[in-house]
Amino acid sequence: MTDTSKSQAPSRRSLIGWGGAGLALGAAAAGGAVAMARTGNDVDPTAAETGAPVEFHGAHQAGIATPVQDRLHFAAFDVETDDRAEFVRMLKDWTVAARRMTAGQPVGEGAYGGLAEAPPDDTGEALGLKPSRLTLTIGFGPSLFEKFGLADMRPEALVDLPKFSGDNLDKNRSGGDLCIQACADDPQVAVHAIRNLARIGFGKVVIRWSQLGFGKTSSTTPEAQTPRNLMGFKDGTRNIAGTETDRLKKFVWVDEKDVDEKSAWMTGGSYLVARRIRMHIETWDRTSLQEQEDIFGRDKGEGAPVGKAKERDEPFLKAMKPEAHVRLAHPDTNDGATILRRGYSFTDGTDGLGRLDAGLFFLAYQRDVRKGFIPIQRSLAIDVLNEYIQHVGSAIFAIPPGVRDKDDWWGRTLFSREA
Amino acid sequence: MTDTSKSQAPSRRSLIGWGGAGLALGAAAAGGAVAMARTGNDVDPTAAETGAPVEFHGAHQAGIATPVQDRLHFAAFDVETDDRAEFVRMLKDWTVAARRMTAGQPVGEGAYGGLAEAPPDDTGEALGLKPSRLTLTIGFGPSLFEKFGLADMRPEALVDLPKFSGDNLDKNRSGGDLCIQACADDPQVAVHAIRNLARIGFGKVVIRWSQLGFGKTSSTTPEAQTPRNLMGFKDGTRNIAGTETDRLKKFVWVDEKDVDEKSAWMTGGSYLVARRIRMHIETWDRTSLQEQEDIFGRDKGEGAPVGKAKERDEPFLKAMKPEAHVRLAHPDTNDGATILRRGYSFTDGTDGLGRLDAGLFFLAYQRDVRKGFIPIQRSLAIDVLNEYIQHVGSAIFAIPPGVRDKDDWWGRTLFSREA
Ligand code: HEM
Ligand code: HEM
Repeated sequence: MTDTSKSQAPSRRSLIGWGGAGLALGAAAAGGAVAMARTGNDVDPTAAETGAPVEFHGAHQAGIATPVQDRLHFAAFDVETDDRAEFVRMLKDWTVAARRMTAGQPVGEGAYGGLAEAPPDDTGEALGLKPSRLTLTIGFGPSLFEKFGLADMRPEALVDLPKFSGDNLDKNRSGGDLCIQACADDPQVAVHAIRNLARIGFGKVVIRWSQLGFGKTSSTTPEAQTPRNLMGFKDGTRNIAGTETDRLKKFVWVDEKDVDEKSAWMTGGSYLVARRIRMHIETWDRTSLQEQEDIFGRDKGEGAPVGKAKERDEPFLKAMKPEAHVRLAHPDTNDGATILRRGYSFTDGTDGLGRLDAGLFFLAYQRDVRKGFIPIQRSLAIDVLNEYIQHVGSAIFAIPPGVRDKDDWWGRTLFSREA
Repeated sequence: MTDTSKSQAPSRRSLIGWGGAGLALGAAAAGGAVAMARTGNDVDPTAAETGAPVEFHGAHQAGIATPVQDRLHFAAFDVETDDRAEFVRMLKDWTVAARRMTAGQPVGEGAYGGLAEAPPDDTGEALGLKPSRLTLTIGFGPSLFEKFGLADMRPEALVDLPKFSGDNLDKNRSGGDLCIQACADDPQVAVHAIRNLARIGFGKVVIRWSQLGFGKTSSTTPEAQTPRNLMGFKDGTRNIAGTETDRLKKFVWVDEKDVDEKSAWMTGGSYLVARRIRMHIETWDRTSLQEQEDIFGRDKGEGAPVGKAKERDEPFLKAMKPEAHVRLAHPDTNDGATILRRGYSFTDGTDGLGRLDAGLFFLAYQRDVRKGFIPIQRSLAIDVLNEYIQHVGSAIFAIPPGVRDKDDWWGRTLFSREA
């Protein structure tokens, strides 16, 4: 850490006052402005090292084109209330909390001096930690539209995912009325954020499932080192970069042209497919290097496509086996279908057979799932990789556009229109 | 990261050659010496920032007095083989792999150029990552001594833990013939290490349970910022520091005086108690600040003991409620009983009721469990904290002394003696 970086990354510690022996900072300190390292959610190469905040406001939600942070906590919620006004109030409270937490501030105005009788507004475990590039991204699942009289606001593009060959889905790890994706370089910051949102949502929403991702796989910053997945391969080499405004517009952000009157609220949003993909690690680890490289169509050390020398060299698909993952997933094989990948490796203990319950929590953002994840995943039906993986969880969410300013709130474009 | 730090932390990427397009480094590069940032497992304040390696060799195993790294992957194994020679071979193979991995090198000699037909020695996902202060610490559980004719080598101090009031133990998260504690600042490095050891052990041992810790709680470096647990309190304020040689000798390391002829192999070792402690997060979060502070006997913001101003001020126990956690856990209440805490926060998704399955994976090292964890935990029977926590997993391990040099191996003092 350099001195510059320290000044860019205010410590949460300095932003709170708690009643208690010898400590009583005022609300003024807690409410103090946080110096933002950047003003839009575009790429800032230094942010990762400084732990600086990522701007919460913008035309699009942060956490999609944002350079991928190291760790993830993802939660799917179900709605418990049938009171629309109460739900909207929660969305507004969530927005206020998210705005503060992404800026590195605790939930609530911060001065607890006079309120020893009340539970603290913030649960406290992120105090003293840097903002850590925390982003919080909200999404609405198909089942939400069965509630609150929203049925005809459901965008056509928010399809129910079809059953894919090989699927072995656990409904306790699938679906959800809404989701929050929390990404941060420090997992404690991501876990803290989900927990505090769950707490604010108490009685209105309940966590249906959640997933911790301990290591990023896909990269959206081609100039940085490409991370490796649990199969040991570089993952995210050919992806949409956070800086490729044109491709983001073409493949990720919902355009005015895509929507009708009822789904106009999605303009500037995106669609997220989340798949919990278990890897048969032990079988994979007994596979020869040659076989492993054939399966992906890239070599393991450098990540170069078959027959090429360098990771960034253009893949020559015909040099690969017909069932190679990269060949089948490539846009040229799928009528140009292109997604932005943002997945994380997970390990959740051990199954009953002494095998690590580990794999890839796959997250893909796209402008239209019918022209993104679905055709690619169909094409992967004959992927040789399938011998070593199994999709065990699945969910789809409509990701509304960004929160524009400090008076705006998550879901406003959906909930402020007449149902 | 400063330039100095970069030069201290060799990238794993530079240490391996994999067969594949455009990449064929030789074994020489892989075998090259790694510049160690330090020569003993004592404190190096700069290591956390540089990602430098921690010395594997020493009189004691690393990972105990070593400054606590940010992340944990802990695995308990059961032995499957009854062939002692085969098991000893595995311990030797593990030692070689552990020595390499802690130095930031991949498992195996590293040049895969000619071996495309064989599975790679290393699974690959830590390539390009820093050593990240990885430590690997092995332990032997009571049940191991029922195998391989080891019965009379079991030290008396390796007791079966008694049942404690409030225990609700899941046997699938308890016990184990042996354990590996992997700590590192990058979780991918810790996960990689456990996975590669499990792989080397295939057919000889099998993972019984494993636990990921996403954030350290206890600190053993008083000069650094004390981390917070999931209850939002600073945790580890009064702990044994890694630099307190005298207290380590007195409370942590097994001394010559403690052992008889049969247990002499434990000299320089320690005993580890691991407890998976679930927190009732949702109930806790509805508790008033005053109540929370009363429960611990410390304030939440600063971490100061009741009636004192600063975290490091000496606690005055009588100012605390009689059932306050700190009062009950303090050495003065327990005939001087003192442990070295090294626990981690965990969150493992959600239970069937939409509650986060989260808490503290408590790890305590001590010279004798009968004078450490057991009396303290008995004293905690009336702890008001118990309303908010439940112990759901438990294990105890004898931690053998350190691996002395490159010819030594894990468990030698136990297995090279005649049974
Ligand atoms: C555990 C499962 C998976 C693993 C281990 C995996 C791994 C990889 C790897 C190593 C690459 C090559 C490097 C790169 O360009 O990123 C890759 C490429 C790709 N994968 Fe996957 N992948 C998995 C599942 C999926 C799924 C489910 C999809 C979508 C349905 C997908 C879509 C893609 C795409 C679009 C590419 C880039 C192809 C190109 O343009 O060259 N992957 N994947
Ligand atoms: C989820 C369970 C637990 C939580 C949240 C917790 C939390 C804390 C906190 C916040 C402190 C005060 C700061 C410090 O000195 O570290 C503390 C102190 C301590 N705790 Fe715990 N603890 C837990 C379980 C245990 C257990 C099971 C034991 C041992 C049986 C234990 C032993 C100690 C000791 C020895 C101290 C230091 C007391 C002193 O010397 O002042 N704790 N704990």
